[in-house]
Formats: sequence, structure tokens, C-alpha cells
Amino acid sequence: MRILITNDDGIEANGIHILAKELSKRHEVYVYAPKDEKSGVGHSFTFLDPLYIIPREDSSHYRSYAITGTPVDCVKLGMSHMMTEQGIEADFVVSGINRGANLGTDVLYSGTVAGAMEGILLNKPALAVSCTGDHEPMNYETGAIVASKVLEYMIENPLPDFTMFNLNVADMPLKEVKGIRLATLGIRNYCNSYVKCMNPRGKEYYWLNDEPNPILDEASDIELHAQGYATITPISPNMTNHPYLEELKQQSFDTIWK
Amino acid sequence: MRILITNDDGIEANGIHILAKELSKRHEVYVYAPKDEKSGVGHSFTFLDPLYIIPREDSSHYRSYAITGTPVDCVKLGMSHMMTEQGIEADFVVSGINRGANLGTDVLYSGTVAGAMEGILLNKPALAVSCTGDHEPMNYETGAIVASKVLEYMIENPLPDFTMFNLNVADMPLKEVKGIRLATLGIRNYCNSYVKCMNPRGKEYYWLNDEPNPILDEASDIELHAQGYATITPISPNMTNHPYLEELKQQSFDTIWK
Repeated sequence: MRILITNDDGIEANGIHILAKELSKRHEVYVYAPKDEKSGVGHSFTFLDPLYIIPREDSSHYRSYAITGTPVDCVKLGMSHMMTEQGIEADFVVSGINRGANLGTDVLYSGTVAGAMEGILLNKPALAVSCTGDHEPMNYETGAIVASKVLEYMIENPLPDFTMFNLNVADMPLKEVKGIRLATLGIRNYCNSYVKCMNPRGKEYYWLNDEPNPILDEASDIELHAQGYATITPISPNMTNHPYLEELKQQSFDTIWK
Repeated sequence: MRILITNDDGIEANGIHILAKELSKRHEVYVYAPKDEKSGVGHSFTFLDPLYIIPREDSSHYRSYAITGTPVDCVKLGMSHMMTEQGIEADFVVSGINRGANLGTDVLYSGTVAGAMEGILLNKPALAVSCTGDHEPMNYETGAIVASKVLEYMIENPLPDFTMFNLNVADMPLKEVKGIRLATLGIRNYCNSYVKCMNPRGKEYYWLNDEPNPILDEASDIELHAQGYATITPISPNMTNHPYLEELKQQSFDTIWK
């Protein structure tokens, strides 16, 4: 398989190279990652500005390029670049390994998950991989090995259209991981507060200081991950609330503005 | 009701002020919008940098502030700013009126929809409003009036938790709008191509030149909108593919890495 790998921590991050090294044992790997860190950019993409591609020499096992954009840009432009420059197409998109978990509704903010989701929208199977830890994870190898196994599963058992896997692995040696559990995305509310300070030029600024406040749900990725499992959640780009839509269809909306 | 309004076209855009003016006829309106255009930033938010708030005097009917961030930042910081500076809480988040439709899977890229979705994540009812048109819409008033009617409906008939309405209105006089239809989010694939050029400094750059390639689906917002209806889609932040998750639960994933 020919795999395009991206991330949101940027081309200099450890996680992406440990993943690329592991996957290049069995596959042909191309890394297209943001030149700078792009954490929290969600599905942001660049169309009002040009993008630059900077070829790199990170490894003899895979090709790598930095792109002056977001993870979604890396997938869009990376795909296009592989096609126009080398006449080849990626078969799969893998995004990660992210520094820090991407659980529950946090996936909306995640550039890592968005990179994989962009693969889905371009009709490629896709996997996002994240490794817990507020600090630099010590055990990216665990994430890389689990990701490699999940990838082999996905190759043998193709997912439905427009569905990707979101994989979260704890920062621990492989033998300590309790197992893999299927999970729903949980809901992670935040108590937002902003620290208000004054800059050296005398202007007030605000800096986000948020605290997660997850809603307890035993079947959720948040809960199962906290228990020491690696979690897999199949996710889709379609956010329609279908049950509620069916309920609403009992009434006519045409009357509401007349 | 006390309504926080944001958008992604920025505080200088016409759409947000036409909406704010309309909603301030019945409600107390606070506008917190990006200082600069933030189209296509999705659910991007700012935590690695500080944010600034610039008070403005756009209207005697509502208060308005520019924020040096994204729509999601505007909702997070706007909520916090209202609380800390004035001791008041917003009851509702409305995002728009966007310059251009936000239909189907395009909502993932949309800063406008993300602004409303952030309201949902902060447990506030929320509505996103977009007006079709590649160029500056002529009939933002149509969008503002339909949005106002939909808002009254939502006040009288509260939506389920973590569900918002995504409203798209065509750029036409109100009497020409065929009606309001409930719709699913459609799927809008793109043929991505990049124009490759050289900048005046001799460096190659790439600029996105994409063409939408929607999948036909009669129940979708894309289709119904094209027929001249205003469309409402109830959407939720939870992207879990539940039917497929249930299917997967028949098998054990624990074995795949052993």
C-alpha cells in the first residue's frame, strides 16, 4: 500500500517519524506534514493564500515534505503533489501520532483527526492515531505498533464509505495496554476561563485557560481510555441528527415565516 | 433573550450587521466577531497565542466587539467576556449570516457553523445562518428574516441537547423563497487541483483551485437548496458512526495485535 501520513504537531514532531518508520516496514510511505505546529486548527484549510512545499530528508525509508499549511492542506496538496509530480496515488491516509489524546467532542478541534477526515472526503480509507499525555509521550512506539495492526485490519476489512477510525493509545509500554475497545465519542465540555493580562506595550490581552469537564458515559472513548484501553471509534463526516430529523418531519416549517 | 452573534467573514462583513439589526428588534444582541476574515477555519481555536478584544461602535441597537481570533474563539471569549465584564450570560448563539452557502460536508470547513457548534458545546442553543452566492449576496434581509423566524421556533420548541440548526437561505427576495425544508447534510466531494506558479522571488507556490462534485441525494440540503428552498438541518457534534459501531462489536479487536 502507498500511505500518505500527516499530523498537526508539525514535521519536526517525534510522533510522525516513529509512525512513518513503523509503517514503512510494510508499506510505501509519503509524509506531508505542516511546517509549523498546527494543534487545534480543526478542519481549517487554506484557499485565500498560496502554499509552499519544502522537500526534506528525514529518513531513507520514506519521503517527506513540509507544507506551509494545515493538516487538511497537507492531505489535499500532498495527494495532488504525488499525482502531478510522480503520477502516483495514495491508497490510504494516516494522521498522527498526535502528542495528546483526541477523545470525544475534542475531535472537532483536532487537526490530526481532520487530516484523516480529509482523506475520507477524498474517498481514501483513513486512520487517526493519538497518544495520551500532556507532556511528550515516552511510548510512541506503542501507538505506532497498535496503529500498524489496526491498519492491517482495515486493509483486510474495508470500512464503509465515508467512515474512518479514530484510535487513541495510552502512553505506556505495549504489554501494559489492557486491550483495544470499540467506543462511542464521548462529550467533553469545558469550563472556559481566560487569563487577562497586560502586554509590555500596555494593551490588555486574554489567554485561554480551559478545564475539561467530561460527561460520564461508560461506553465512551473518554471513559475506556481512562481505564487503560486503546480505543477505536468509527467516525463519519455527516453530523446530521437523524432521529431528531425524523421527529421534526412530522411538522411543517413552511408556516413559520408566513 | 440575550444573543451572542458571531460569523467567520469578520466584523466588517455586511451579513452579520443585517442579522444583528434584525434580531435586536426583539432581543438583546452582543456581536463578537473576528477582526479579520476567517472563512474556512472550521473549528480552529487559539490557545498558543493571546487574543485581543477591540470594542466597536457599529450600531446603537447592539454592542459589538472585534476579536483577533476565529469564530470559535469569539464564542468562547465572548461568553467569558460578557460574564466577567458585565455579569451576564448569553442565552443563545447565532452565527452568520455567512457570505456563501454552508451545505453538506462543507460544514466541516465552515467557521460559521463551528461558531454555532461551539455554542452547543457550551450548552447554549445555537443556529448557523448562511446565504448562497459566490458574490456578495444582495438579499441578506431574506436570511435575517428567515433566521429570526427560525430562532422564535427554537425558543418555543427547544432542540435536544447538543443539537443545533444549520440554516441555508438562497440569495433572493423573501417572496421568491419556495419554502423551508428539513434536509440531511449531503456529501460534497471536491476535485482538488492546485495551480503551480512562481512568486516574484523565484519560489514555487501552490494555490488551491477546487471544484465541488456533490453526490446526488434528493433528501440532502444541497439538492433542496438548489431547488430554491431554505433548508434546515439539525446537526450534532457527535460523529460516531453508530450503526457500524454496533456491527463491529460482534468481533474482538483484542486479538489483532497479539
